[in-house]
Amino acid sequence: MNTPLPVLSPTAEPDLALARILFEQLREMSFDGVGITRDSYGKGEHLAHQLLARIAEEHGLRVTRDAALNLYMTLPGRDGEAPAVMTGSHLDSVPRGGNFDGAAGVLAGIAILIGWAKAGYQPGVNVTVMAIRAEESAWFPLSYLGSKAAFGLIPVEAIEVRRFDTGRTLSAHMADFGGDADRLVLQQPWLNANNINCFIELHIEQGPILEDAGQALGIVTGICGSLRYRQACASGRYAHSGATPRLHRQDAVVAVAELVTGLYQDWMELEQQGHQLTVTHGQIATDAQQADFSKVSGEVKFCVDFRSRSLQTLSLIDQRLQHRLQQITARHGVTFDLGEQTRSAPAAMDPSLQQLLQSAAIEQQVSAMTLQSGAGHDAALFAAQGVASAMLFVRNANGSHNPQESMAFPDFAAATRVLAQALKLRCGPGVVLGKQSDVSY
Amino acid sequence: MNTPLPVLSPTAEPDLALARILFEQLREMSFDGVGITRDSYGKGEHLAHQLLARIAEEHGLRVTRDAALNLYMTLPGRDGEAPAVMTGSHLDSVPRGGNFDGAAGVLAGIAILIGWAKAGYQPGVNVTVMAIRAEESAWFPLSYLGSKAAFGLIPVEAIEVRRFDTGRTLSAHMADFGGDADRLVLQQPWLNANNINCFIELHIEQGPILEDAGQALGIVTGICGSLRYRQACASGRYAHSGATPRLHRQDAVVAVAELVTGLYQDWMELEQQGHQLTVTHGQIATDAQQADFSKVSGEVKFCVDFRSRSLQTLSLIDQRLQHRLQQITARHGVTFDLGEQTRSAPAAMDPSLQQLLQSAAIEQQVSAMTLQSGAGHDAALFAAQGVASAMLFVRNANGSHNPQESMAFPDFAAATRVLAQALKLRCGPGVVLGKQSDVSY
Repeated sequence: MNTPLPVLSPTAEPDLALARILFEQLREMSFDGVGITRDSYGKGEHLAHQLLARIAEEHGLRVTRDAALNLYMTLPGRDGEAPAVMTGSHLDSVPRGGNFDGAAGVLAGIAILIGWAKAGYQPGVNVTVMAIRAEESAWFPLSYLGSKAAFGLIPVEAIEVRRFDTGRTLSAHMADFGGDADRLVLQQPWLNANNINCFIELHIEQGPILEDAGQALGIVTGICGSLRYRQACASGRYAHSGATPRLHRQDAVVAVAELVTGLYQDWMELEQQGHQLTVTHGQIATDAQQADFSKVSGEVKFCVDFRSRSLQTLSLIDQRLQHRLQQITARHGVTFDLGEQTRSAPAAMDPSLQQLLQSAAIEQQVSAMTLQSGAGHDAALFAAQGVASAMLFVRNANGSHNPQESMAFPDFAAATRVLAQALKLRCGPGVVLGKQSDVSY
Repeated sequence: MNTPLPVLSPTAEPDLALARILFEQLREMSFDGVGITRDSYGKGEHLAHQLLARIAEEHGLRVTRDAALNLYMTLPGRDGEAPAVMTGSHLDSVPRGGNFDGAAGVLAGIAILIGWAKAGYQPGVNVTVMAIRAEESAWFPLSYLGSKAAFGLIPVEAIEVRRFDTGRTLSAHMADFGGDADRLVLQQPWLNANNINCFIELHIEQGPILEDAGQALGIVTGICGSLRYRQACASGRYAHSGATPRLHRQDAVVAVAELVTGLYQDWMELEQQGHQLTVTHGQIATDAQQADFSKVSGEVKFCVDFRSRSLQTLSLIDQRLQHRLQQITARHGVTFDLGEQTRSAPAAMDPSLQQLLQSAAIEQQVSAMTLQSGAGHDAALFAAQGVASAMLFVRNANGSHNPQESMAFPDFAAATRVLAQALKLRCGPGVVLGKQSDVSY
């Protein structure tokens, strides 16, 4: 028997007009006066989930939710028993973030499935768009919260972590909208890697690489892991700024400044040796109550964020950190408490899916390049569970996690068409309903 | 006519028991749960002024106040028309500070005058203890507020500056307790240098020099001036910590860290060249709203405090600062706004008063050394007005501006006796009333 050539059904296009409207509606409902706030397990994220669930239902998609309130919008395929093809991303944002980080991947999936549904196109297997909860660890001190919950990976104690702004527990925040933390702690997975054909996440690029290279799309080869100290503290001694000679000081500001400049030096050296990594101290602060412009500071709180695709590189920079701390303590009498270390593992993207996305881009005549993701994504968690996973980045000026995120709609449209083609091919032959005899890709 | 030998009246001892009780009462009324808070033109300072005015009146001292609510407690001398000998210090404290910074100098003066009053001792000229307002610029962004006001030196616009915590104006805060800002702006001086014989301020040392040297007392040779940028800001660009390569960053944290380490280097070099100075960045902070552990930081607020006895040294370190800023901007694309520069002038202490204190210390068999004051004091303002001024430091462990200030009472007692002797000698021959014929020092 000859397999029919993969030809796109000419009528089964993504509903990009709908996506455009939904971007606008999301922006309106989550504008905070400065940027976009869709707070994890808060009102902002909730409203976005509500909107998309309603739209999905209105267009005949099957809508379900798990105990953690992740949202699944499914277009049934010809073989409803076969492992599902999945796409999607998260709907939450950082505080005062942008409209595209996360949402683009969910709207692309919805535009594809609703386009297919409108055209009567039934894919080979079930295709599910997942709107993932709480990916941004700006709110709760956990990475990949929603996707971890879907795989039954939330540790018992995690449901009592508190949101940085409200001080309320994850469990209480979930309950606000009907989530069930008690079921989560049973760690019964809603998703099972064996029932998932693949997960392809479309996301804006959060850095400048595509923009600089003049490429609309990026095909991700791997996702960096991280090694972090979110709540580190340097302790010296408060002293009068005028009356305390240099060698009598235990100045926490000088100590942390030497650490930051030293690690920047280490970063440059490791890069010269061929390592790939990032080193960031996003927050640093003297004590709001005790510090004064006329006092040597006795305390500085700061954080450390190392990222790399290589576990070995993460270990190397962490060793450099420990070495620096010893030197600085000896030199300045300032001690360090790094607090809890958290890690996320690097993840490789599936080579055959990368190839599939590359072919689809060529087919759609969209420029694409390969790159790695310095930022973490839910796709890393899927990959770690053994799901064949891939990511498609969309060019985006001005970075992410800020109100100036700037994805051009034509780039989004191109990316969505590439994603549609890749999903279709991965699903195997579909049909256009009403014309059951025409097998179509 | 032979001048009688300077012999202390054996009965005219400082009332140290009273001073001990007053230290306790001040501590009780201004303990904030952590340290001592006597807020400038707030309840804490007000209660302290109330207490001491009442005690002074009960013991027959003449109590007056100027428009800025500085408190003057005077024991009349034999020649009431001659320029007065003055002593005293400030009664306010930094937030969560210690009990001795400022108050020690006022209590020493009160203990001396009340001791003299109880013994019927009348000094040669009027002796005034001044309890100065608002010396700590932690509250209002002005140095030497109270003593400046006494000399009619408050600029018109200054009465509208706001207290950092309440946000209310100086004028409003003064009015709470009967002060009259409208009179202040007329800049009519309450004090006139021509009518002041001298000003001798007793104060705890705010650094470790006496403690380290094993000396109870310090005789101050000069007071450092300052050059400050209280509200400096580094502006870069917020960016995703994982997705933004090193050379694409404009990291405000790295920029300020390089500035702090660079200026520390400059400080060491200038010291090696024989300069005397301090360099302090007491406050540094990323933005509480916008910064995140997973973002490159686009903004850091910080402050710069340079102090030296030499105007030339202050200019030199300020040039180094400007040079560093240019280098860092070129390297990291981070720009700096230093904000307003404020300065206070260095002041030399009067040599004959230093000699007088030294002699008094020898007479009282108290160990004393000379040193300079890195911290600013009201005595610098008196000196700048042409008043012969001096300072007597008392040994104090653990620095100042913190709850752990630790002046031993025997050191305070010794300092008070030395101050009493110096004041007495400076006043010229006094009498013990009721024994008018016994000329006594």
